[in-house]
Amino acid sequence: MTKQIHINEASQYVDQEVVIGVWLADKRSSGKISFLQLRDGTAFFQGVVVKNSVSDQIWEIAKSVHQESSMYVTGVIHEDSRSHFGYEIEISDIELISQSEGYPITPKEHGIEFLLDNRHLWLRSRRPFAIMKIRNEMIRATYEFFNKEGFIKMDSPILTGSAPEGTTELFHIDYFDSDAYLSQSGQLYQEAGAEAFGKVFSFGPAFRAEKSKSRRHLTEFWMIEPEMAFMHQDESLAIQEHYIAFLVQSVLDNCAYELKILERDTDQLKKYTKLPFPRISYDEAVELLQKGGHDFKWGEDFGSPDETFISEQFDQPVFIMNYPKTIKPFYMKEDPKRDDVYLCADLLAPEGYGEIIGGSERETDYEILKQRIVDAGLSLDEYQWYLDLRKYGSVPHSGFGLGLERAITWICKLDHLREAIPFPRMITRIKP
Amino acid sequence: MTKQIHINEASQYVDQEVVIGVWLADKRSSGKISFLQLRDGTAFFQGVVVKNSVSDQIWEIAKSVHQESSMYVTGVIHEDSRSHFGYEIEISDIELISQSEGYPITPKEHGIEFLLDNRHLWLRSRRPFAIMKIRNEMIRATYEFFNKEGFIKMDSPILTGSAPEGTTELFHIDYFDSDAYLSQSGQLYQEAGAEAFGKVFSFGPAFRAEKSKSRRHLTEFWMIEPEMAFMHQDESLAIQEHYIAFLVQSVLDNCAYELKILERDTDQLKKYTKLPFPRISYDEAVELLQKGGHDFKWGEDFGSPDETFISEQFDQPVFIMNYPKTIKPFYMKEDPKRDDVYLCADLLAPEGYGEIIGGSERETDYEILKQRIVDAGLSLDEYQWYLDLRKYGSVPHSGFGLGLERAITWICKLDHLREAIPFPRMITRIKP
Ligand SMILES: [Mg+2]
Ligand SMILES: [Mg+2]
Repeated sequence: MTKQIHINEASQYVDQEVVIGVWLADKRSSGKISFLQLRDGTAFFQGVVVKNSVSDQIWEIAKSVHQESSMYVTGVIHEDSRSHFGYEIEISDIELISQSEGYPITPKEHGIEFLLDNRHLWLRSRRPFAIMKIRNEMIRATYEFFNKEGFIKMDSPILTGSAPEGTTELFHIDYFDSDAYLSQSGQLYQEAGAEAFGKVFSFGPAFRAEKSKSRRHLTEFWMIEPEMAFMHQDESLAIQEHYIAFLVQSVLDNCAYELKILERDTDQLKKYTKLPFPRISYDEAVELLQKGGHDFKWGEDFGSPDETFISEQFDQPVFIMNYPKTIKPFYMKEDPKRDDVYLCADLLAPEGYGEIIGGSERETDYEILKQRIVDAGLSLDEYQWYLDLRKYGSVPHSGFGLGLERAITWICKLDHLREAIPFPRMITRIKP
Repeated sequence: MTKQIHINEASQYVDQEVVIGVWLADKRSSGKISFLQLRDGTAFFQGVVVKNSVSDQIWEIAKSVHQESSMYVTGVIHEDSRSHFGYEIEISDIELISQSEGYPITPKEHGIEFLLDNRHLWLRSRRPFAIMKIRNEMIRATYEFFNKEGFIKMDSPILTGSAPEGTTELFHIDYFDSDAYLSQSGQLYQEAGAEAFGKVFSFGPAFRAEKSKSRRHLTEFWMIEPEMAFMHQDESLAIQEHYIAFLVQSVLDNCAYELKILERDTDQLKKYTKLPFPRISYDEAVELLQKGGHDFKWGEDFGSPDETFISEQFDQPVFIMNYPKTIKPFYMKEDPKRDDVYLCADLLAPEGYGEIIGGSERETDYEILKQRIVDAGLSLDEYQWYLDLRKYGSVPHSGFGLGLERAITWICKLDHLREAIPFPRMITRIKP
């Protein structure tokens, strides 16, 4: 029996006859030759059907098969230096599985809303295919990195009985006879994890009921949140930059084909694997903005245009360190040298992409943290379990959060987060 | 400066002086020696403080330090064949970071509700520690297995705009001006993924608003859902059993210390790495039950006691194949040899644990599937995108779902799923 393979194994079967289960992505004919663009989920490549080399019946199938029909093709693999992929198959037999009529996504241009309505099909097209493969590689590399560094994955709960940072951007759920909310961040739970397991990370979905239509927001997104006990902010920054460099290097090493589909400049990406990343203080960032003509005052938070401007001043990711306390959450540790800023940093991606990581050292003192909770107008009762972490064996600890889709958007050089997740959820989109 | 290490690195530092950041798990004194049971998140081991070898101040700290206080200890690593761990540290210096007063979880017995109320602290105890490390290893091994097998991870959405299998067990969300539900399963989306990427898997949280207090149910749990294009049920069963054997082998290889803490019989576990797993039909399972004196009729679904009984008849996981159509979901493929059963199988774990995997070949025919949706009283409109997968390039495909916590409960030999997840969610528990 002829061996059944996948397209991405073609290089190992040159001049051999193989069978491949495929879909027809596109086709063109030139008289007595049919060129079938085939895909099987691992890659795209060309199948060539020569009229004089096949039966009339096979030639008929090759001529009449429609876009996205499924079939088993049999043929011999050839090297083909002219093709994008480097190999093609000279087809001797076709077994049609299912003829497809009127596939809605044609080679012509379609509007984004139409494509999103058909996301279950659009994922098959070259560009979403390449992005999702890169997403997969970044997920794989994330596990490799944190496992190697001695972290354990500890899943924070998604359903939470309290609303830690206020309820305005939280999705509410009737949880039997009580209330629950979808988690925006698992960080507080990761802090409990750090005191149990030393170094932990979560990697799961997070939810934000933000009424924003910005290209940088999704209502459902995936976050990676590492938290490290016995660790100060400077060591945390070192882990962050090593992690980012590892992500980029992994994509360069394992997704050359997908980066080519996206026409991503790999020389540009290579720059992001050089460490350390530049570090500037919030104060210096404010100066940069002011010198650049931005109307920005110390103490304000950066908006997207500000982040874009700052990140464009560097050709690597840049850490902005030590933000004013007034614009950052209550659990951060005060800079011991100044009482108006925290020991924190955001990492801004270059090429104008802005924030992809936010992180800080955490406050360890029970009384200070308790007062902060009160000052923030939050319920001491809801936070007692979190305060317990400072009552029983408090240690210096730091952590950060990476938004997966933001990192993908940057590495793939996309315009909008909605292309970085298989089934995007936005204020106006909950289907399919 | 003395090198700072983790406890699980002790074997590499025998007879060397090191520093370790630790918490005090427990302690006992015998006159002029204090034995500190230390933990740092990687392991537990003993620190020995000899009064005559340390300053009065250090001796005082060793005597007065309370459970779960945090400190840096300095000392020399020794081999210690009497200890559980094999190594201990002879302490010369202690830097107390934070004294802990009145830690609620003492070495005495506590009730389960009290422990769950203090889950943020209970995670530090030996047993939860060991279970969570094994959970982490099973997560790591899952990615290793599916990456190696050529799958890509494709995240199904958690927020869904329709209620695929009826709304009774779904959590509802007000999604801006429309309705949304928390996903119970990402399978339908994985089927779209299989037609785009060939072999895909999801690994994320799923939610079931089931009013069950059973020890086999959580409202929030994690599922692994692989889906394979161009694949029939028999090949899917082979992947399933290889995956399970790989999970068990990975835990045996990498969690010997944790299995010892749990006193898990590793000879028993080794049996579960032998392939193939036994396979019996639903019909044969019914016979087994009837012979065993169970009042069970063909066509009924197995309850937990039935599954327990069946699984106790085998000393390996066992596949129950081809269930009646009436008790399984609409999307499964009919057995070509019989019109009353589907090509499906559940995998029951041994030692009475019952179902850990459910899977099937999927129906590929547009018209049959459409009729099934109508017959199930579901909305054709909501399912049109799913029907599209049969309209455009339908191919034979199969998939399955593994409940992570059920698999952990079995591998760790636990009584209840609530111990298999860091922060369990049940009908009466949504905090901390
Ligand atoms: Mg910001
Ligand atoms: Mg069942």
